[in-house]
Amino acid sequence: MTKPIAIQGIKGSFHHEVAQLYFNEKAEVVECMSFDGTVDSLLKGDTDFIVMALENSIAGSIIPNYALIDTHNLSIVGEHYLDIQHNLLALKGQSISEIKEVHSHPMALLQCKIFFKDYPHIKLVEAKDTADVAKQISEQNLKGIAAIASKNAAQLYTLNILAESIQTIKHNETRFAIVKRENLEIKRKTINKASLKFELDHKRGSLATILNVVSDCKLNLTKIQSLPKLETLWKYAFFVDVTFKDYKDYEKALSIMQLMAENFKVLGEYKNARL
Amino acid sequence: MTKPIAIQGIKGSFHHEVAQLYFNEKAEVVECMSFDGTVDSLLKGDTDFIVMALENSIAGSIIPNYALIDTHNLSIVGEHYLDIQHNLLALKGQSISEIKEVHSHPMALLQCKIFFKDYPHIKLVEAKDTADVAKQISEQNLKGIAAIASKNAAQLYTLNILAESIQTIKHNETRFAIVKRENLEIKRKTINKASLKFELDHKRGSLATILNVVSDCKLNLTKIQSLPKLETLWKYAFFVDVTFKDYKDYEKALSIMQLMAENFKVLGEYKNARL
Repeated sequence: MTKPIAIQGIKGSFHHEVAQLYFNEKAEVVECMSFDGTVDSLLKGDTDFIVMALENSIAGSIIPNYALIDTHNLSIVGEHYLDIQHNLLALKGQSISEIKEVHSHPMALLQCKIFFKDYPHIKLVEAKDTADVAKQISEQNLKGIAAIASKNAAQLYTLNILAESIQTIKHNETRFAIVKRENLEIKRKTINKASLKFELDHKRGSLATILNVVSDCKLNLTKIQSLPKLETLWKYAFFVDVTFKDYKDYEKALSIMQLMAENFKVLGEYKNARL
Repeated sequence: MTKPIAIQGIKGSFHHEVAQLYFNEKAEVVECMSFDGTVDSLLKGDTDFIVMALENSIAGSIIPNYALIDTHNLSIVGEHYLDIQHNLLALKGQSISEIKEVHSHPMALLQCKIFFKDYPHIKLVEAKDTADVAKQISEQNLKGIAAIASKNAAQLYTLNILAESIQTIKHNETRFAIVKRENLEIKRKTINKASLKFELDHKRGSLATILNVVSDCKLNLTKIQSLPKLETLWKYAFFVDVTFKDYKDYEKALSIMQLMAENFKVLGEYKNARL
C-alpha cells in the first residue's frame, strides 16, 4: 500500500499541484505547516515522499531545504519544474471594486505589489499561507476579501478568478524535489541527473580542478552554489547538479571527485525533468 | 558635504549597525522601508550610499538584491560581515514571565522558535520589522510585549535585554555590501576583491574553462552561484566573487573572461573585509 505524500502548505498550494502533476491527480497528501513538518512526517513513516521546493528563478536556492535533505540524509529521487502564477481570487459574484483587503503571504504580496498600485482602495494584509486564505474565504463566505493563489486553489475552493497572472515578474519558475528517506531502487538506465554536495579548501584552483573532472567525464553542470562553512573559515561547501547521458560516465566522475573533495555526498540520483 | 546613507529598516536595525561600523557611529542614515526604497533614494540623489545585505550563512544569496544592483547598474564599493545575534527586548522592569506576546519579523520568529518552546505562555505575533517593534514598545510604553532585535536597538530605545542570543543557529553571519551609483575613484592599491556577473551557454566545460582562467591568473574564488536565465533556456548567469593580491592579475583575468563569457559585467571592485 502506498503511503501519502508530505507537502508544505495545504491542498491548493503549489506543492499540492506538484504532487498531483508528478504522481497523479488523486495522490493523497499530508498537509504540513512547515518544511520541518514534512521531514518529521517522512521520518515518522506517516508519508513515503516529500514534495519540496528547492530553488526558484527569482530568489535562487532555498538553502534551508538543502540543509534539511543533507542533515537528515534524505534522498532526492525526482524533480519537477512549475511556473508559479499568482491569481486574484474571491467569492463568486464579487467584483474587484468590492474587494477591500487582499490577504496573502508577504512574498506573494511583494511579488504582486505593482498590480495593486492600480487599486489603491485595496489594503494588503499579511497572512501565513496563500492557499489557506482561499480556503477561509470559501468556508467562511468572506466578502470583500481576496486571496492570491493558484488556479488550482480557485477550483478546489470554488472561488472566482478576478485577475490572472498578477505577479510583476511573469515567469517565476520553481524547481521542486521529490524526496524519500533513501533511494533503494536506482534504475541506472533512467537516471541522467544527480545532486552532489562536497567541501573544498579555499585553495587556488580547487574548484576549477573538480569542474575539469566533471567536464572530462562528459557531465554537464546545471547548477552550482557555494556556501561558506562558518565553523571552519576558508572552507566552502558546494551544491552541484550534473546531467549525463551514460551512467558509467557519472560513476567515473564520482570515483575521482570523491578522492579530490572532502565530505563528498550524493544527495540524489534521478531523471532530469528538463529533457 | 557628505550625503546620508540609505538603509533598509529603521535605526537600531542590523543595516543601521553596519552603516555605523563601516562609516562611523554618527553616520547619518535615511530609513527606507524596502530594498527598492534604498535604491530609489540613491537614484534620486538623496543618499550617496546604500548598505544592503547580500547573503547570509543560513539562507545563502539574496538574489533580489543582486538583481537590484545589476538592473540599476550600481557599484559595490565595499563589504562588511556581521554576525547576526537576536536578543529578547522589553521595557525595563519587565520579567520574561510578564511577557505575553513577542512581535517580530517572521524570519526572526522562525530563527528563535526553539527558544520560545520553553515559554509556552508567550504568543508569537508577526510584524514587519524587528527594530520597529522595539521602537514602538519604547515610545508607546507597551507592557507585556517583547521584541526580537539587536543590542544596538536595546540601547537606542532604552529597553532591557531579557535574553541574549536566542536564535537557534548561534552563528548567522551576514555579508553586507556598500553600494554607490558608480565607482569613480578606484584605488588600485587597496582593491583586492571583485564581484562579477557573466553568462554562459550550457556547453560542457564552459564554466570549467572560465575557472581555469581565474586560477591561472592567481585569483581565488570566494563565491559562485549559478542562476538559470528564464528567457533563454540552457543559458546560465553566474555571480562570482574573486580575491587577488595584485590588481594586474585581476586585470589580465578580466580581459580574458570578457572574451569568453557573454554579457560580462563588473558589479564592484573593493577591499576584502576578510583580510
